[in-house]
Amino acid sequence: MNPNIPQTDRKRIVIVGAGFGGLKLARYLSRRKEFQVVLLNRQNYHEFQPLYYQVATAGLEANSILFPLRAVFGDCKNVHIRVTNVTGVRPADKAVDTELGPVTYDYLVMATGADTNFFNQQNIIEKALPMKSVAEAIALRNRMLQNFEDALSVETLDEREGLMDVVVVGGGPTGVELCGTLAEMRKTVLPSDYPELDFKMMDIYLIESGGELLGPMSVQSQQHSLDYLQKLGVNVRLNTRVKDFDGRVVTMNDGTTLRTNNLIWAAGVKANPLAGLPPEVLGRGGRILVNRYNQVQGFTNVFAIGDVALMTEEKWPNGHPQIAQPAIQQGKHLAKNMIRWAKSEPPVEFTYRDLGTMATIGRGLAVVDLPFLKFQGFFAWITWLFVHLMSIVGVKNRLAIFLNWMFNYLTYNNSLRLIIRQKLPKGNMAAMQEKLSDQLEVSKT
Amino acid sequence: MNPNIPQTDRKRIVIVGAGFGGLKLARYLSRRKEFQVVLLNRQNYHEFQPLYYQVATAGLEANSILFPLRAVFGDCKNVHIRVTNVTGVRPADKAVDTELGPVTYDYLVMATGADTNFFNQQNIIEKALPMKSVAEAIALRNRMLQNFEDALSVETLDEREGLMDVVVVGGGPTGVELCGTLAEMRKTVLPSDYPELDFKMMDIYLIESGGELLGPMSVQSQQHSLDYLQKLGVNVRLNTRVKDFDGRVVTMNDGTTLRTNNLIWAAGVKANPLAGLPPEVLGRGGRILVNRYNQVQGFTNVFAIGDVALMTEEKWPNGHPQIAQPAIQQGKHLAKNMIRWAKSEPPVEFTYRDLGTMATIGRGLAVVDLPFLKFQGFFAWITWLFVHLMSIVGVKNRLAIFLNWMFNYLTYNNSLRLIIRQKLPKGNMAAMQEKLSDQLEVSKT
Repeated sequence: MNPNIPQTDRKRIVIVGAGFGGLKLARYLSRRKEFQVVLLNRQNYHEFQPLYYQVATAGLEANSILFPLRAVFGDCKNVHIRVTNVTGVRPADKAVDTELGPVTYDYLVMATGADTNFFNQQNIIEKALPMKSVAEAIALRNRMLQNFEDALSVETLDEREGLMDVVVVGGGPTGVELCGTLAEMRKTVLPSDYPELDFKMMDIYLIESGGELLGPMSVQSQQHSLDYLQKLGVNVRLNTRVKDFDGRVVTMNDGTTLRTNNLIWAAGVKANPLAGLPPEVLGRGGRILVNRYNQVQGFTNVFAIGDVALMTEEKWPNGHPQIAQPAIQQGKHLAKNMIRWAKSEPPVEFTYRDLGTMATIGRGLAVVDLPFLKFQGFFAWITWLFVHLMSIVGVKNRLAIFLNWMFNYLTYNNSLRLIIRQKLPKGNMAAMQEKLSDQLEVSKT
Repeated sequence: MNPNIPQTDRKRIVIVGAGFGGLKLARYLSRRKEFQVVLLNRQNYHEFQPLYYQVATAGLEANSILFPLRAVFGDCKNVHIRVTNVTGVRPADKAVDTELGPVTYDYLVMATGADTNFFNQQNIIEKALPMKSVAEAIALRNRMLQNFEDALSVETLDEREGLMDVVVVGGGPTGVELCGTLAEMRKTVLPSDYPELDFKMMDIYLIESGGELLGPMSVQSQQHSLDYLQKLGVNVRLNTRVKDFDGRVVTMNDGTTLRTNNLIWAAGVKANPLAGLPPEVLGRGGRILVNRYNQVQGFTNVFAIGDVALMTEEKWPNGHPQIAQPAIQQGKHLAKNMIRWAKSEPPVEFTYRDLGTMATIGRGLAVVDLPFLKFQGFFAWITWLFVHLMSIVGVKNRLAIFLNWMFNYLTYNNSLRLIIRQKLPKGNMAAMQEKLSDQLEVSKT
């Protein structure tokens, strides 16, 4: 294998990761004559992370929140996409190593994002369900649906309750949105799908280690979201940590236990820095320390943007929140600085513009914090829908999501309750098992 | 595990398989007070088989051609769905065995359909790609897209051609539709996605053992489809059989070879009868011999319908074609006979009503044979689209497919070119490998 990237006299910018930051940067530079852009990504698509939970709860099909990278850059001849894993960086050689072989760079931008943080708890790594990729969201959907099928066929009530109950860990937007949606499904579509099961038995718990839900939001949004969830019948436990999970019983730090087969882990993220960086450039949560030009400490031609980068401003002494907006803004800003550098103009410092945050809890229930206005309820929900719809890449995805949402709103019926199990690729058993071990390898902790 | 199907004083009809026949039968009986209906299916959804090829070629998302069974029967309290494999039948005990345990019946209807027929060629079983389930269609899509990614990174021209070329075996509707779509993608979307590849290198072959394409259709439809495919640049080889495939080279019965990594096998089907039936009831192609009431030879309470059944009429001395219409008509007819039997009325003999056949080759190109009218071209294509759209279960699926088709027609851009690899369920390695062997087990030949 050989990445086969043509040599030109343009400066080569290698971007690792096609999330919000990497994609924005690549799109911005894609039509510039002074650069050759190499975009390396593990998948052949961009994922719209904020809607994973709707894939997990059968509200949207995975396709609607994915966008094929090659469809974005089809007519840009100076953009070279390679679908591969980047295994490390060798700054001394100005090269990254990939599964296809090494790729050299003039400039390197790491936009590798963040992954689930299990806080080194081995039992939880092995048994809990994360939701930090569309593949994990589909796995979660399949698992939940299979649970209800299995619940029909078990011999004891204890087993049935274990299959039906859900414990979600982490009171951020993911945990809140997931619990809200599950609680609504418990009222509407699930009893209609499974008339043989008694959904009064299905308990939904949300466990949060802090003293409130939606930590970074305003106090009024925090209180409203707690109130909404409780009205929907979600058991919220604040100031509680999950200590252990054996696949059947969750143990809290206060010694209490909950019987469930389903522990969904949305309790935190940690950055995905590339192997090979000097240890002194890594800060809190594995994030890469960068200056206000997104340059990695000690380098002029190596950059990090988005969730994986740790840039401090006076207003953000611990770095920016690990959400879409800082990544998008840094991607765009770095593109402009790249163009300035190419013209030998001085670069401009990045300043994060906080556009606000929002979360949805259920049908007609959301909380929105804008810089100068906070509101909750139905109008907040419409705002949430509109903002998310407009942020999706692709006219067709937008249309598909809009129609899905309209349909679900009118019918209370998210009709994607499909347990699609993919066929494994054919080949000999040894190759299969090797592939399997790869896939089973849990994220390095 | 225990299927936990409640005992009532109603007669229990067990239906194995929720394809066109089984689903039709179950829907027809779902609101009758005299029966308890137990529907056993391997998946929790019904698959619309005629559009697999559009999933394989990224034209439709898998979800659009699937419909969750529980959404069909949500409010029918006398229908009990169990998602499980049926491993065999024990007529003496009036029971079928499933992975959840045995299920007894008063009446048994086998609607288990047909699967790919590899004609016992071990190399082809191991290395060719079938397309007889939505999981196989997704696997095919992932494989084809991954091939183009790999083609960018190989070292030799031979390897690149092997990845890009496609050989399809079987000149029935599946093979014809697949080749037509691939040939159109080669002209439009693929060169735009992969400007670094030269699509003049990509060869598409269609191999058919008979003397014409679309065997059961009219001569004028056969000739038009051949003509359309050749105009699209497909190399059609009639009167040729594939003898061997080693994963890199296809060998024909005339000794010629073709270099490709991709052999798509659509050359025939064989029925899926349940294990445990007396051998004398199995006819040609593994189909179960039934009388005109769909009763299996020698039984009064065991039935077979659709692809798995072999019923002869004067007009159909070799049985009905293994397509949707006979299955649908038999499902409906058997339901009516069941109701007649329950009322002690005499049953009515089944007569197949041939509504015609059709196939689409490409954009604006299709062939339609109605009983009293045959036509080809653009109007045939519109007819094909309309008939398939109207046959899909579910308003939302219909809408989704309609919009997808409109969008693809206007933009020439099927935007589902996503290589989605599912995460394997977590668990210990031993359980994984067991699951893996299950999935790897190729159909018994």
